[in-house]
Amino acid sequence: MKQRIEELFPQLVSWRRTFHQYPEVSFQERETSKRVAAHLESLGLEVRTGVGGGGVTGLLRGHYAGPTIALRADMDALPIQDEKDCAYRSRIPGVMHACGHDGHMAMLMGAASILTTMKSQLYGNILFIFQHAEELLPGGAKSMIEAGVLDGVDAIYGVHLWSPLPTGYVAYRAGHMLASSDVFKVNIIGKGGHGGLPHTTTDAIAVASHAIVNIQSIISRQIDPVRSAVISIGSIHGGEASNVISDTCEWKGTVRAFSPDIREFLLRRIKEVVHDTCHMYGATYEIEIRKGYPPLITNPIETERLRKVAEQIVGKEKVEEMDPLMGGEDFAYYLYEIPGTFCFVGAGNELKGITAPHHHPRFDVDEEAMKVGLELLVKGALQYLHEGTKEIDKPTLLTSFL
Amino acid sequence: MKQRIEELFPQLVSWRRTFHQYPEVSFQERETSKRVAAHLESLGLEVRTGVGGGGVTGLLRGHYAGPTIALRADMDALPIQDEKDCAYRSRIPGVMHACGHDGHMAMLMGAASILTTMKSQLYGNILFIFQHAEELLPGGAKSMIEAGVLDGVDAIYGVHLWSPLPTGYVAYRAGHMLASSDVFKVNIIGKGGHGGLPHTTTDAIAVASHAIVNIQSIISRQIDPVRSAVISIGSIHGGEASNVISDTCEWKGTVRAFSPDIREFLLRRIKEVVHDTCHMYGATYEIEIRKGYPPLITNPIETERLRKVAEQIVGKEKVEEMDPLMGGEDFAYYLYEIPGTFCFVGAGNELKGITAPHHHPRFDVDEEAMKVGLELLVKGALQYLHEGTKEIDKPTLLTSFL
Amino acid sequence: MKQRIEELFPQLVSWRRTFHQYPEVSFQERETSKRVAAHLESLGLEVRTGVGGGGVTGLLRGHYAGPTIALRADMDALPIQDEKDCAYRSRIPGVMHACGHDGHMAMLMGAASILTTMKSQLYGNILFIFQHAEELLPGGAKSMIEAGVLDGVDAIYGVHLWSPLPTGYVAYRAGHMLASSDVFKVNIIGKGGHGGLPHTTTDAIAVASHAIVNIQSIISRQIDPVRSAVISIGSIHGGEASNVISDTCEWKGTVRAFSPDIREFLLRRIKEVVHDTCHMYGATYEIEIRKGYPPLITNPIETERLRKVAEQIVGKEKVEEMDPLMGGEDFAYYLYEIPGTFCFVGAGNELKGITAPHHHPRFDVDEEAMKVGLELLVKGALQYLHEGTKEIDKPTLLTSFL
Amino acid sequence: MKQRIEELFPQLVSWRRTFHQYPEVSFQERETSKRVAAHLESLGLEVRTGVGGGGVTGLLRGHYAGPTIALRADMDALPIQDEKDCAYRSRIPGVMHACGHDGHMAMLMGAASILTTMKSQLYGNILFIFQHAEELLPGGAKSMIEAGVLDGVDAIYGVHLWSPLPTGYVAYRAGHMLASSDVFKVNIIGKGGHGGLPHTTTDAIAVASHAIVNIQSIISRQIDPVRSAVISIGSIHGGEASNVISDTCEWKGTVRAFSPDIREFLLRRIKEVVHDTCHMYGATYEIEIRKGYPPLITNPIETERLRKVAEQIVGKEKVEEMDPLMGGEDFAYYLYEIPGTFCFVGAGNELKGITAPHHHPRFDVDEEAMKVGLELLVKGALQYLHEGTKEIDKPTLLTSFL
Repeated sequence: MKQRIEELFPQLVSWRRTFHQYPEVSFQERETSKRVAAHLESLGLEVRTGVGGGGVTGLLRGHYAGPTIALRADMDALPIQDEKDCAYRSRIPGVMHACGHDGHMAMLMGAASILTTMKSQLYGNILFIFQHAEELLPGGAKSMIEAGVLDGVDAIYGVHLWSPLPTGYVAYRAGHMLASSDVFKVNIIGKGGHGGLPHTTTDAIAVASHAIVNIQSIISRQIDPVRSAVISIGSIHGGEASNVISDTCEWKGTVRAFSPDIREFLLRRIKEVVHDTCHMYGATYEIEIRKGYPPLITNPIETERLRKVAEQIVGKEKVEEMDPLMGGEDFAYYLYEIPGTFCFVGAGNELKGITAPHHHPRFDVDEEAMKVGLELLVKGALQYLHEGTKEIDKPTLLTSFL
Repeated sequence: MKQRIEELFPQLVSWRRTFHQYPEVSFQERETSKRVAAHLESLGLEVRTGVGGGGVTGLLRGHYAGPTIALRADMDALPIQDEKDCAYRSRIPGVMHACGHDGHMAMLMGAASILTTMKSQLYGNILFIFQHAEELLPGGAKSMIEAGVLDGVDAIYGVHLWSPLPTGYVAYRAGHMLASSDVFKVNIIGKGGHGGLPHTTTDAIAVASHAIVNIQSIISRQIDPVRSAVISIGSIHGGEASNVISDTCEWKGTVRAFSPDIREFLLRRIKEVVHDTCHMYGATYEIEIRKGYPPLITNPIETERLRKVAEQIVGKEKVEEMDPLMGGEDFAYYLYEIPGTFCFVGAGNELKGITAPHHHPRFDVDEEAMKVGLELLVKGALQYLHEGTKEIDKPTLLTSFL
Repeated sequence: MKQRIEELFPQLVSWRRTFHQYPEVSFQERETSKRVAAHLESLGLEVRTGVGGGGVTGLLRGHYAGPTIALRADMDALPIQDEKDCAYRSRIPGVMHACGHDGHMAMLMGAASILTTMKSQLYGNILFIFQHAEELLPGGAKSMIEAGVLDGVDAIYGVHLWSPLPTGYVAYRAGHMLASSDVFKVNIIGKGGHGGLPHTTTDAIAVASHAIVNIQSIISRQIDPVRSAVISIGSIHGGEASNVISDTCEWKGTVRAFSPDIREFLLRRIKEVVHDTCHMYGATYEIEIRKGYPPLITNPIETERLRKVAEQIVGKEKVEEMDPLMGGEDFAYYLYEIPGTFCFVGAGNELKGITAPHHHPRFDVDEEAMKVGLELLVKGALQYLHEGTKEIDKPTLLTSFL
Repeated sequence: MKQRIEELFPQLVSWRRTFHQYPEVSFQERETSKRVAAHLESLGLEVRTGVGGGGVTGLLRGHYAGPTIALRADMDALPIQDEKDCAYRSRIPGVMHACGHDGHMAMLMGAASILTTMKSQLYGNILFIFQHAEELLPGGAKSMIEAGVLDGVDAIYGVHLWSPLPTGYVAYRAGHMLASSDVFKVNIIGKGGHGGLPHTTTDAIAVASHAIVNIQSIISRQIDPVRSAVISIGSIHGGEASNVISDTCEWKGTVRAFSPDIREFLLRRIKEVVHDTCHMYGATYEIEIRKGYPPLITNPIETERLRKVAEQIVGKEKVEEMDPLMGGEDFAYYLYEIPGTFCFVGAGNELKGITAPHHHPRFDVDEEAMKVGLELLVKGALQYLHEGTKEIDKPTLLTSFL
């Protein structure tokens, strides 16, 4: 298997760099999806395009009956200007694969290539999901699920290249792994006026400041300290002149949690604190809450399964249980439907200078990491089918991998 | 005198409307000052132009020796789009006489006309000061004083048309009448980052909110309740995205006080509260204080003198002592040099629909009010010269007015 | 007159020191009122005791018809331990004349003595009011008024010995002179619990802290800066153990204003801020407002009259217009009924070491100050009767004093 | 074994009720320790008293060589008035076993009885530790360790009766289980004065309120949301009168964390926020930090060992992994020295009305729970010795229990 991967690696790099040079932002992954579909069709898979809008899937039916496992990659890039100096930097101004989705696609295309060659020995089926629009609300996962992408699928795995983790490492977590991520926007509506006559006004900026200070006590006093919750204000804008009290002050932020009850509590409490702070000083307000992805909660059994596979690949000492992370992922939606798991594949490399965080203009991945991710996808799928298949006489080839 | 004013009134309206149609913003009062200077020269006064930058003065020397009284009008307009529907609305896009300075000039030009006819009976001299740039820091008064405009002047009077007060009324105040008005700008410098990872950041918006809340206690706890002080935040701007913690948050405001000690105290305390709030949360900051006009403090003797004149003109019941007002005026600078006073001449008229506040796009003055202002300027000057002149045999004509 | 006062002075000192040694707290002025009544009766005045509870009055009817002027002193001491080292220090443990009421009584008794000798020349009447319970709500003034003490009285004067002002000085103010003084008590009711489990509690101390911070913005943002308002929290008490979150937090404070509208606004706003802050964090509360004395507003005409008298006594340069003071006095109630005024008679003396503030355990008055106060009471009453009497032929004696 | 426990149970109840009726507060466990020592001596163990002050230990030496396991109970009661209605309620006014230590002692005495009967088959030794003063800083554990209680001991187990968990259940946790618990006391020193003259004072209550509000942002903005931290203010006291601004305000609280870095960070940050808030408003302060118990971190191997024992006793479905708890225990000190674990034994029973939380005046334990705790101690010790003993031929009796 390692040899097969080595042979395929130049092809992976080539795919990845092509994607990297021609990134497309969320919901506009036209050429990207064409390239993916062309590859899946060249392998003879059952290909669907435009799934849930812009998704692409390829179904590999094994020779023998068995369960169906899905593997998922995401396809969209970000509206960021690529500032790297390298031959394969983005050729599209202001658009860049700054989160590793180019590598995700290359790995999954490679996995499709390898697994297709095992078709005659396979018990069960493998669905390759290339999802559009992971980076932008409402995301592509939800609409692909609504379009039936998980019909007949028994489990799903996803891997994410991760630059904060060195190449060669894999990080997993059972249960709450990534946070829900909602956004809110508040507009405090006071009454403007002369800066020297505050009593004739309702000072929207002062009210907003009070509200932001008051919000801190939600976290510090009302959340179980052994659970996680974040309310961050990302922007605030009100008024123009020094000597005129502004009639409005608009601010917005994000709310993160791992559990639905804390998530709902935070959203409700923000509304209440804004309401009462405004009422206290005679202001009114508009508040808009936009729910993002739910928390990503991995299935413990599938996580344990993939963890063992990872240990075979990179060694026990390079497989780490990670702390929950307050970031979000719409892979969460799949895991609300069927069992599955998600893991991070290290893609950072200090020696090569690959250290920029995700979403950074100089972000890159250590392409060597794709070998690990590819092997994890292939062996993860095989392991699932192997253990999920009840028949006694499983193909020798398959078990030889495990 | 009333008759003389009635005869002159159409001329005043014409002057005022011309100024109103061709307003010029602060420090750019080119055509305006030419018109003023032409009139003063037509009266045969000793005219100076470009005084302290853009000011114009005309000196009327009386036939007899005596003191010198100055009368001041301001000439600049505001960067506001005129939204009135009337024949004389501003013809300059985005520029408008929204504070009544057009009327101030017309009144003072009329006063010059009338007083010039009395030249042969006058004991002492009258200086007509047409000041540029009252609306914009650093103002024109200071530079005109530095250019010597008050050399040899014994006292100064100024009147301001005031739409919140009905036409026919005059408001005065001895002592602290208008506030000092300084501005400050603060930039909180934290450390930006992921909205879900607040502990890796220094949240500039949260720090700014704390600072603004903390500032309130300066006023509520540290200022003598029988004295006046205001700190108002006029604008705040920080961050763009909901889910990214901003590294900076910039806000600015105005500081108002009637006494130098409170003024300095407030400016110092803002710095201290910003410093300590930033230090508390690990942020740094930049702060810029820009001092504006000092408090306007009228001379009690001159105020009493002009009050009595006003009572003769409009009747005792229409002359009101006003509360101090937290607005500012660079007429304050003159009063730091020589005795003098300032008063408000009512120019609002509900029946005529003239109710918009100063600096409003639909601001207007009841032109009838110019008659009161004109008479106050003329009689005020005469009264000063009369009482300031020691000689026994004053001209009959003059006293007949008083 | 000065001579008469000098002759009477040893008697004043004696009276004052007796009162000082045997002080009685508010509403318990038993012996004190007996001593006062005995003196008034010895002068042959029409004496009433137990007026409105514990007040004493003596009416001096002048020989000629005329108006009636009242002069008022207060009689109660404070629950403070006298810490002075002197022969006349308080002999009652824990009770002390720490506000000068002992001197007020002595001066008014002296005034009664002197004025009684002028009875045969007097046009009009003089009512000597010795009021109980000035220091403790609801005060004695209100009930004495309800008992008819002001029936037939045309005006009233009061003087207060004042240690922050040097002996020999008199301070007056027309209009708003002393503040209204109300008290409030708030009990925040949360839910107690384990200090490590804040989310299972409603932290009453945190809610109280937020409320107190929020209250600051009432003063800083909602009161006209040229008017006066104070909200001060005097005490806060909640919880006992470090590691147990308290279910309650009780705090109380005082509210000061010079005008009824601001007074009512402040009381209403405190309730609202407490209500909304509690609601914000899920707490409830009890709030109790206890209204104290209204603002003391002197009549301008009577103030001017007494000011002139004061200038005759101590000289123009020792009569000062004072700033309004945020302290309270139930003399205010009289001034809501009839014209009158109140003034401060300097009683501090640095050379003699008499510098302690009122209500201090080492408070004392410079007894020389009683001469000024006595003369002011006597001449003030005579001046009022003189100017208030329409008859042409006023007694020579009387005018000789004025 | 179950039978042996049933036979012993009346004895356990008797012991427990005696302790319950005669509770002794921390550091004063005189009679309690005598009773414990008498029992241990009656069993023929090697008994030490006064260990580290007031601790008692009994050493059971097994017939065969092997490791040494310690079992620990705590002995002190709380300064709480027992409000239960039952025969065995506390007979000592104001003192009560409100945390279950009476049951802990009974269980460990029972365990000593049973294990002593197995002495001849035992490989290794068992040390019974009866610790004084768990409830009061600095606790008894530290001094007992310093007195050598752990010399030669290889591991230690402790169990805690726990009323929030139903009888029959056992809760465990590997790693961070209980929090560090430090206390701090702050005294804000301002300048007192008249409630109507806030500008002449430094309002200590207002400064304290600001500090408490500011502290909330430490938790909400500066702690990794996936980690745990608590700062709770337990009491605040300042001032007495409504209308006098207090010169001081004293407040104290508790700080909880699971990791040393967060613990130190919180303590440092409280100091900084207090310092900067005081500096901001011109106050000074005194702050006293008193470090309490460190976080209790169980050894994963020992926790797993005891967990399996618990599953044998109560069944798999009644053994729960618990969330970390922000409470503290000085059992933590033992675990910094040697491997070991701690677990909670359910002792609540809704049917019996046993629901009051620990430290509550009506706290009680379901005595049936002592059977589970006793069995867990006995079998836990045996299991440790069994697995810790390298010899091949272990006694049959012993393994028959496991």
